[in-house]
Amino acid sequence: MELQSIANGIWKGTIGVPETHTPVTMRKFPMREEALQLVGEAKLPEAAECITFRRNARGLQIMLPMDSDEDIYGFGLQLRSMNQAGRKRLLRVNSDPAADTGEGHAPVPFYISTAGYGLFVDTFRHAEFYMGTSLEKGRSAHCMEVNQAHKEFSESALYALKKNVERRTVIIDLKAVEGVDFYVFAGNVKQVVQRYNLFSGGGCLPPMWGLGVWYRSYGGSDQEAVRKTARSFREEKMPVDVLGLEPGWHSHSYSCTYQWSYLFPQPEEMTKELEEEGYKVNLWEHVFVYPAAPFYQELIPFSGEYEVWNGLVPDFATREAEDIFADYHREAFVRKGIQGFKLDECDNSDMNPSNWSFPDTAEFPSGMDGEQMHAAIGGLYQNLIYDVYHGENRRTYSQVRSSGTLAAPLPFVLYSDLYDHKQFIRGMVTSGFSGLLWAPEVRNCRNGQDLLRRMETIMFSAHAIYNCWRIPNPPWKQVDIGKNLAGEFMEEAEYYTDVCRRYHEIRMSLLPYLYSAFVKYWKEGIPPVRALAMDYEDELQARNVDDEYMLGDSLLVAPMILEDGVCRKVYLPEGKWYDFWEGDVLVQDAAEVEAIEENVREGKVLAGSAAKGNEIEGGKVYLIRADYDRIPVFVRDGCILPLAEPVQYVSRDTVFAIHPKVYGDGREGCVLYEDDFESFAFEQGRQNRVSLTADAERHICVQRSGGEKERYRILG
Amino acid sequence: MELQSIANGIWKGTIGVPETHTPVTMRKFPMREEALQLVGEAKLPEAAECITFRRNARGLQIMLPMDSDEDIYGFGLQLRSMNQAGRKRLLRVNSDPAADTGEGHAPVPFYISTAGYGLFVDTFRHAEFYMGTSLEKGRSAHCMEVNQAHKEFSESALYALKKNVERRTVIIDLKAVEGVDFYVFAGNVKQVVQRYNLFSGGGCLPPMWGLGVWYRSYGGSDQEAVRKTARSFREEKMPVDVLGLEPGWHSHSYSCTYQWSYLFPQPEEMTKELEEEGYKVNLWEHVFVYPAAPFYQELIPFSGEYEVWNGLVPDFATREAEDIFADYHREAFVRKGIQGFKLDECDNSDMNPSNWSFPDTAEFPSGMDGEQMHAAIGGLYQNLIYDVYHGENRRTYSQVRSSGTLAAPLPFVLYSDLYDHKQFIRGMVTSGFSGLLWAPEVRNCRNGQDLLRRMETIMFSAHAIYNCWRIPNPPWKQVDIGKNLAGEFMEEAEYYTDVCRRYHEIRMSLLPYLYSAFVKYWKEGIPPVRALAMDYEDELQARNVDDEYMLGDSLLVAPMILEDGVCRKVYLPEGKWYDFWEGDVLVQDAAEVEAIEENVREGKVLAGSAAKGNEIEGGKVYLIRADYDRIPVFVRDGCILPLAEPVQYVSRDTVFAIHPKVYGDGREGCVLYEDDFESFAFEQGRQNRVSLTADAERHICVQRSGGEKERYRILG
Repeated sequence: MELQSIANGIWKGTIGVPETHTPVTMRKFPMREEALQLVGEAKLPEAAECITFRRNARGLQIMLPMDSDEDIYGFGLQLRSMNQAGRKRLLRVNSDPAADTGEGHAPVPFYISTAGYGLFVDTFRHAEFYMGTSLEKGRSAHCMEVNQAHKEFSESALYALKKNVERRTVIIDLKAVEGVDFYVFAGNVKQVVQRYNLFSGGGCLPPMWGLGVWYRSYGGSDQEAVRKTARSFREEKMPVDVLGLEPGWHSHSYSCTYQWSYLFPQPEEMTKELEEEGYKVNLWEHVFVYPAAPFYQELIPFSGEYEVWNGLVPDFATREAEDIFADYHREAFVRKGIQGFKLDECDNSDMNPSNWSFPDTAEFPSGMDGEQMHAAIGGLYQNLIYDVYHGENRRTYSQVRSSGTLAAPLPFVLYSDLYDHKQFIRGMVTSGFSGLLWAPEVRNCRNGQDLLRRMETIMFSAHAIYNCWRIPNPPWKQVDIGKNLAGEFMEEAEYYTDVCRRYHEIRMSLLPYLYSAFVKYWKEGIPPVRALAMDYEDELQARNVDDEYMLGDSLLVAPMILEDGVCRKVYLPEGKWYDFWEGDVLVQDAAEVEAIEENVREGKVLAGSAAKGNEIEGGKVYLIRADYDRIPVFVRDGCILPLAEPVQYVSRDTVFAIHPKVYGDGREGCVLYEDDFESFAFEQGRQNRVSLTADAERHICVQRSGGEKERYRILG
Repeated sequence: MELQSIANGIWKGTIGVPETHTPVTMRKFPMREEALQLVGEAKLPEAAECITFRRNARGLQIMLPMDSDEDIYGFGLQLRSMNQAGRKRLLRVNSDPAADTGEGHAPVPFYISTAGYGLFVDTFRHAEFYMGTSLEKGRSAHCMEVNQAHKEFSESALYALKKNVERRTVIIDLKAVEGVDFYVFAGNVKQVVQRYNLFSGGGCLPPMWGLGVWYRSYGGSDQEAVRKTARSFREEKMPVDVLGLEPGWHSHSYSCTYQWSYLFPQPEEMTKELEEEGYKVNLWEHVFVYPAAPFYQELIPFSGEYEVWNGLVPDFATREAEDIFADYHREAFVRKGIQGFKLDECDNSDMNPSNWSFPDTAEFPSGMDGEQMHAAIGGLYQNLIYDVYHGENRRTYSQVRSSGTLAAPLPFVLYSDLYDHKQFIRGMVTSGFSGLLWAPEVRNCRNGQDLLRRMETIMFSAHAIYNCWRIPNPPWKQVDIGKNLAGEFMEEAEYYTDVCRRYHEIRMSLLPYLYSAFVKYWKEGIPPVRALAMDYEDELQARNVDDEYMLGDSLLVAPMILEDGVCRKVYLPEGKWYDFWEGDVLVQDAAEVEAIEENVREGKVLAGSAAKGNEIEGGKVYLIRADYDRIPVFVRDGCILPLAEPVQYVSRDTVFAIHPKVYGDGREGCVLYEDDFESFAFEQGRQNRVSLTADAERHICVQRSGGEKERYRILG
């Protein structure tokens, strides 16, 4: 296989004649060649030299060798597993994957191997990746040991020999495909991810307000109800930046009219009023166009062969459909103050009977078929909305339920109706491998403790959103849907309100830090939320941790789920760490504690030497005890955390008062970025770099470069 | 589309150049043309005249119109749904389908429509059938109603408009296929099934012993333990015909050696001894050949490209692999008294990591690929074993975990590790649409009541099997696995033993009746276990009943699951019915009972006019109350049930003493068949037909034709 170097650390291979419609042929963002120069030296990975392929009537197959100790990450959003070594991944958009098949809201034909490479196959097809599940014939010819004595005939005995240790094969199965391009990325896990993201166009930089707290209000709300909800947050001093609405345009047609319903007689006045109160308004819509939509007739020739929920499926791969949709959204919403959208239902599903999405066989005017369109539509939809905002020189931060390849530059966050908290945490960990952002939304809560655990998680994520479309009152007043609808509040509502408010404030204090993490995403392709495997690949124990993650440079977050109670295990990578809560979290050596297991089983008595607020030595697993109002968060030694005084919301004029907090000797400092926080001027270099370092006495030194307005006031 | 008539009521269509390897090109059983003549007059169904197709780079698509009131059945074993109208079916072998996608142990690209036709697409590919899920663009152009007032914004409101009522489209999606044959079958649901089964070669006729009770013994048993189990059944007068064994050849290699392990030092002696005690021995094996197997070397050139569990995958589409496997099995087992096999693990799975089955891309010496082989291997494996027995002029009744198209002539019963009792009942209902047999095996039981409910179900199924591979003692002694392993018995063991014994005896008394049902399967293609939709298609209420079934001509079975407690609803088709238990089951008009709902909710007090043993008027839903030792079974008016005096097991010389039981006026009588019950002589007409009718005084008249030995002694 001849491979062509296309940038520092990236090679392209071509087999046969590739299809016309692929992620790369339809890309909107150019590769970031200059940024790629900075990732580091790279030579063609060994595995890339062993790529073989086969073409037959069935399609095209690509093969690579795989060592038995190789770990595999990627494939887009994966809610059910992280390390894909030994697994089969079917890359098919499916909003309700019932098993760990690889399907999901945002599958991506890209993986990273700890053998020092990544591979991206440029296709919208339902590719199937066998990640070392198969041994070639003859590899086991030496195995002759059978029928050993066994005391108990059980499943464990039966399945004991199933995991093979021989050198395996990666097989990529592309059905009904004659040719394909693929791209090889060199480096360690982090570098491969960087290269893939920069190849995609670099990470997105949301407006600062997008990093604040979001609240999607009750779907049945009218204008007055929305206003009331908005006012209540300000009255209660509950920081919220974004309000989500259902304009009543899909709840009784399901495909959309894109016209405010009778529930919102003065939408422009309402939007303006909300804006004055410091809210950005986000509208909930679908991609399927109901006959009563104003642009229905115009769209007919540029839509797919089959309807979905009685609506047209626009073919966004045609310029015409893009323009019709974009022009309407620009005039009707974007220029009238709407700051973003929730692009719902653009994925497919196996679970719902009758007329859920279009068939794979559907033909589209662009020449794409339904199979390709399922993989493409989420990205096309995002691109279109992004372009509208870019044209207005306003950044958006929005939501989308399906995404896929080369999505890093798109400021959209994925979400799901699947609602397993553990899976939602894993979603943060896995999405970062493939240029995706994921929201572990708070929706329903089983009880107040579940609310706290889920709320804590969103506050330390890329998107702090409550999705309250089912309940007219905030969940901190009432978690039970029936009682919430009836206006009946929990006895402990005040307690939950207080805890939530404290976390809203913590989120607001993290805004400058999170903004820096996103600037890094944009500049260097390093995602803001990362698996430990990305930062600590060399530590074997870190490679399978799928319930902790790095948030930005310095925070390690280990959320708890309701089922954990107040105890969980946490692996802390090598080096020193500090409890974010300054000793509120009890940290105990897990090995020590296990030695006196009895006490632990009883749940209450924790033994072993506990660390409280002190430096914690990494490189091992700890048992963490954190009350329901505490999410375990650890701070990396040597950093400076630039904590801001919380504001209620981010406005055009917000200047953050920063209290830098030094951990250890603060030798690594931190970097902040100042710009207008909402336009695309930063792309033209209109951004200050503010570097904070600590001197020998741990005093802060500030170095500012750039001539933009100062947005951070650095305090003592 | 030009269609060619190939038999009475069957037409063939061809698109392009079909693939070489398909169910029909590889069929082993000829179509039963003469039997097809008897099914009835038929003209080309309307739908068949509207078939269109499309070929493109992606493959081939076939389209048919579908009315909104059409019901759809078939697609092989479907555990999660029966009526497939409005659903998408993916026909892919998958032993662990986590959702209702159409995948399973035995998918079949054949469906039946209540619009008077059936369609079989002759392919081993992962065909996808969209059964009216899609509306063509423009069909909803008239829909303009939106944004109606709604009191509560809830999911039910949101999803209310999803079910469409417009004329839909059936789409059959065949990827990477250039051409295909398909077959259209005319008639009502039952006739279409008959035609499909006779096209397949007619239904199988198991040996009489196969219809007795089966017991698969503990997988860790040695020779002595098996003998002890066998003796215990005879001592306890617990009728059992078949004993299943694990010869120790896969439990520590997982792929098979096909050699008795050290646990069985004298396998031939043991087999002979068991035979003398009236047992048929069935061996548990896999299709994957471990290097220590005697024919491993010989098989290498005739096996697939990849291994499974360190073993070869024989390519049974080559004559050589077939012969190697068949010759070995004939000599080593069949000629040494083994009466059948459990062909395990020949399906695929998404759920298990690493090396579970071969990739779809695998190449086989025959020219088949892995995708085709997954769909074919179960059938090929069955054919091979069947041929060995046929060559010895001995019938087998065996088990297989994957099957598929044209399987009606194969005397193999499907089973599963999935263990939902409701799904297991549905499996009986759905498998009968596509020429398959299904065993609702008793495996684990949550408690004694669960044991009873599951045991009752198997006794009124095509295959009465306990699968006790996890427990050394019978479940009627102890249902808890841990305690069973420890040899600790339940307090109520005697009670459960007695109830089980009574059901074993009932099963034995049904043998002649069940044998007749299978003869009908063989002669006419009418399956022994049938959905109500097959016999009572004209009754709309019957069309969605997926938890009751007809067993033979005269019995309607409505099993209960543990969750039902002692109450369930049963639809009885029009006409008169009788309680099999002569009044032990309480039958109450469900509508009446619902009118006094309160009492029902309390669970105890049942009101309404109860029928006890009397004639029950059909055509409506009843509330049935049946204690844990009673499975609701109803007898069709006008039939004669030929109940036999139970024997402990069926031997070569068994003559059944029959007590005919007349229901109503007995006008429909019953027909019995006598032959040697174990060889293929019946295929040459060596079979008596014994007709039982009732005269005006309900006295039995017996008419016997044929010169074979009499096996039934008709009493009273």
